[in-house]
Amino acid sequence: MAKRAPKTNERILQEGLALMSQEGLAGVTIGRLAEQVGMSKSGLFAHFRGKEDIQVGLLEYAGRVFLPCVLEPAMKAPEGLPRLESLVQHWLGWAKRAGLPGGCAVAAAMFELDDVESPVREYVLGLEAQWRATLGQFVQRAVDLGHLRAGLDVEQFVWELCGIYLSHHTSSRFVRDPRADERARVAFEALVNRARPGK
Amino acid sequence: MAKRAPKTNERILQEGLALMSQEGLAGVTIGRLAEQVGMSKSGLFAHFRGKEDIQVGLLEYAGRVFLPCVLEPAMKAPEGLPRLESLVQHWLGWAKRAGLPGGCAVAAAMFELDDVESPVREYVLGLEAQWRATLGQFVQRAVDLGHLRAGLDVEQFVWELCGIYLSHHTSSRFVRDPRADERARVAFEALVNRARPGK
Repeated sequence: MAKRAPKTNERILQEGLALMSQEGLAGVTIGRLAEQVGMSKSGLFAHFRGKEDIQVGLLEYAGRVFLPCVLEPAMKAPEGLPRLESLVQHWLGWAKRAGLPGGCAVAAAMFELDDVESPVREYVLGLEAQWRATLGQFVQRAVDLGHLRAGLDVEQFVWELCGIYLSHHTSSRFVRDPRADERARVAFEALVNRARPGK
Repeated sequence: MAKRAPKTNERILQEGLALMSQEGLAGVTIGRLAEQVGMSKSGLFAHFRGKEDIQVGLLEYAGRVFLPCVLEPAMKAPEGLPRLESLVQHWLGWAKRAGLPGGCAVAAAMFELDDVESPVREYVLGLEAQWRATLGQFVQRAVDLGHLRAGLDVEQFVWELCGIYLSHHTSSRFVRDPRADERARVAFEALVNRARPGK
């Protein structure tokens, strides 16, 4: 019996993340989430202090689901460019492989919260900065090992890589273009080629 | 008096588009919009049949605001690559220049509606396809005039260009990075350089 509360918490997070991946942050209302997990609204408030607390909790949980799907498998590839390539391969379309019914909740939140000041926006800003820093470290390591050219503008590389991710998100999820993966692969190869030594 | 209804309609669209650019489609509830324009909910229903009708109306209106801001000034540049470059320059950050308080509502809608089947989703799909076709025509014209290489994969070019637009959207609006414009310019120049004759 002692473990009942954490288990319920986990179930709320799982169902909530599934809901958020399909309907965005705005879709995760207290009523809708309570319905999904089969609890009363007041039952939900035993676990979370309010809507923003639930949203931050779900985003935190998304981060916990993301890492084993994306970062951990990439760490098995050889350091430098092969590891960066593996990271990008695991990043593109990660939500589907993580068993989420919708797309990347963080990407969607970046469009949803661009003008809405809130602790949730601050949290997403932090997640985004952290992820860009991680991407930057992988790129920098490829530079240090001579796989990419010295003096490369690493931030520009990451900026363009984020564009490939976002275009892949809209083309695979919104447009449902069967060639989305191939388009992203060609774009990423071109980005890497521009960054090779001697270019 | 005869012109009163169209004027009100225009005002609802203006206020609604401003609201949508800040808070997304989900933020444009009937109650919120009625409050914004100082009308009763039933007063709003004299102009629109329901929430989806308002959302499609606002997206249609966004298209009407978009064209004179983006397409029309580009048509003044010489045909081919200069016109494509002018189009991209006017496209990036267009919403701000159009006087909208928030970002591009269509880009946000692509993330909001990726899993939500509705007539609104169908409408945004149509807008998106139409815009990609327009971009494709501009790229193709630059190919035909020999400014870009023969045999260029025009769809791939447009796909990557959409990634630059989306990355510019998140970095300028969500991250509020002061270098967003410069990042987008460098990325676009690289995309064009890869597509030049002899490359």
